[in-house]
Amino acid sequence: MGRVGIRDVAKAAQVSVTTVSHALNDRRGSRISAATKEHVRAVAEDLGYAPNRLASGLRNNRSYLIGLVSDEIATTPFAGDMILGAQDAAYERGCLLMMLDAGGDGELEKRQVSTLLQHQVDGIVYARMYHQRIGLPVELAGVPTVLLDAVSADEKVSSVIPDEVEAARLAVRSLVAAGHRHIGFINNLDDIPATHGRLLGYQEALKESGIEFDPALVVAGVPETNGGRAAAMDVLSGPSRPTALFCFNDQMAMGAYQAAGSLGLEIPRDLSVIGIDNLELIAAALWPGLTTMALPHYDMGRWAVKQLLNEIEKPDDVEPVQMMFDCPLVQRGSVAPPLQI
Amino acid sequence: MGRVGIRDVAKAAQVSVTTVSHALNDRRGSRISAATKEHVRAVAEDLGYAPNRLASGLRNNRSYLIGLVSDEIATTPFAGDMILGAQDAAYERGCLLMMLDAGGDGELEKRQVSTLLQHQVDGIVYARMYHQRIGLPVELAGVPTVLLDAVSADEKVSSVIPDEVEAARLAVRSLVAAGHRHIGFINNLDDIPATHGRLLGYQEALKESGIEFDPALVVAGVPETNGGRAAAMDVLSGPSRPTALFCFNDQMAMGAYQAAGSLGLEIPRDLSVIGIDNLELIAAALWPGLTTMALPHYDMGRWAVKQLLNEIEKPDDVEPVQMMFDCPLVQRGSVAPPLQI
Repeated sequence: MGRVGIRDVAKAAQVSVTTVSHALNDRRGSRISAATKEHVRAVAEDLGYAPNRLASGLRNNRSYLIGLVSDEIATTPFAGDMILGAQDAAYERGCLLMMLDAGGDGELEKRQVSTLLQHQVDGIVYARMYHQRIGLPVELAGVPTVLLDAVSADEKVSSVIPDEVEAARLAVRSLVAAGHRHIGFINNLDDIPATHGRLLGYQEALKESGIEFDPALVVAGVPETNGGRAAAMDVLSGPSRPTALFCFNDQMAMGAYQAAGSLGLEIPRDLSVIGIDNLELIAAALWPGLTTMALPHYDMGRWAVKQLLNEIEKPDDVEPVQMMFDCPLVQRGSVAPPLQI
Repeated sequence: MGRVGIRDVAKAAQVSVTTVSHALNDRRGSRISAATKEHVRAVAEDLGYAPNRLASGLRNNRSYLIGLVSDEIATTPFAGDMILGAQDAAYERGCLLMMLDAGGDGELEKRQVSTLLQHQVDGIVYARMYHQRIGLPVELAGVPTVLLDAVSADEKVSSVIPDEVEAARLAVRSLVAAGHRHIGFINNLDDIPATHGRLLGYQEALKESGIEFDPALVVAGVPETNGGRAAAMDVLSGPSRPTALFCFNDQMAMGAYQAAGSLGLEIPRDLSVIGIDNLELIAAALWPGLTTMALPHYDMGRWAVKQLLNEIEKPDDVEPVQMMFDCPLVQRGSVAPPLQI
């Protein structure tokens, strides 16, 4: 389901983009004939070029409202910074952000989107709580949209996600840099992009350091504290105990702390631990503080709104972008050189 | 700054509420004279009875949109369940919830409220991230409003907060029921209603059990993990070590776990711990799981929207309510009888 843009209308009507704009805009004093106007409007209608966009986008009749439609970023503790970044970017450009969470309920989400369109939002940021590949909801066809923490197959729709492979590569590199060569990976069991991307990054970082990949050092679990604890117990009790653990997320790293504690291992003296997320409630609260790769939620939220506004304000100049953000290393106290034995 | 209601208009115009409604409603076929209509409208205008309410509330010209204006409940991990409860209640009554977080920026909040009013929301839930006493923003005068996790001095405005005193009383009672008589309290340093209410509840529960209040067992800190850790270290290292700790919140309880661990105390064998919040990310993740009093965020959010819709739909029958919700005990694994010495 491709988005119909002003260029598509111009092409189908065999006129210029400016003519389409004037025809749909109904601007007084524009120099196009009534016949051309009627022709362009009929073509636009045939193509399903959305009336809302006609009303709000082209006429410069902007509402300066941006809709933020998500599954549950507002109600769960994982990605609130995406909202902050989106809000800040909207505010800087004189826009307000209206948030609607559907909690994953498809019917409710449809109603929310249609309500936002009735209220003439200039565009929509469509966000997921964690990096996902999605199909773009049909209601959004023809509506300026940017995907946040999600990608679709439609290359005409801009999107922004974290670079999962690079995040894992940098995490493992930082353990190697501290002197570790025997590094375990506590992965997630779920079949999602982060699971595969982070495993790949782990493997690549080992390879570039000349460390052989040992499948026995990779243990997966449910991506929460108890899953991390069980997986860490498993790999730390095995025949060849790693000196460092790279954990899929901060919650699993918290579980690794608990496993280490019950095995009498002190962090970071006996075991280094690194996570991904930089979830303040956990990473900063653990003792010692957890060194982790920050998911760039704030920057992604900010980028999504800026890209959306650029596309709305300069539809003919701004191309859609598939953006990836790096995950910066946040150093706290959980990584140290391995003990010399 | 009181809210001007339909009753105030009726009183000032010396007519019935029904007449005011008809006059402002402009309903065809209503049996009031043009002179009465003009008189009532003039009085309403003099009193500043808000035009938005005239447009959306009285004419039955409902938008079925509810605004949720908050400081930061959407972007922080503490109170997301309030949004869930509010959303569910709105959805059940055929309404949509639009969230706007201002992050504590008063100017931004003013713009947000005025935008919501322009978009004809039926009413506004005005929420704070934690229980606060506030002054009602002047922009909300005349707009159907319910306060969520906040109270104001204006008794005409409905509000809902948790019962802080009762939450602490029940927490301490559950420790007494397990056999503890030597119970420490790790309190918050901030001058907020929860700090004072919970101290009062702690004292009342001790009193009703015939346990003398010992100020040496009350230690305060910043309401985060490190504050809890330092305070717990303090009280656990003192001359008369308590067998149980009641903690201001789950984060401070997490700090108490860390202090216990570093002192070689096992939870719950050597020390019982109870928190307040039921913050899933912490309470369920600690090992053993943290027994805690759940803040009734979901129920409060749900109640706020239901009350708001009742006030909107039956303005003449529904009185404003100052509501308090109980905090239920969530039992996990951190409370046990004290060791017999």
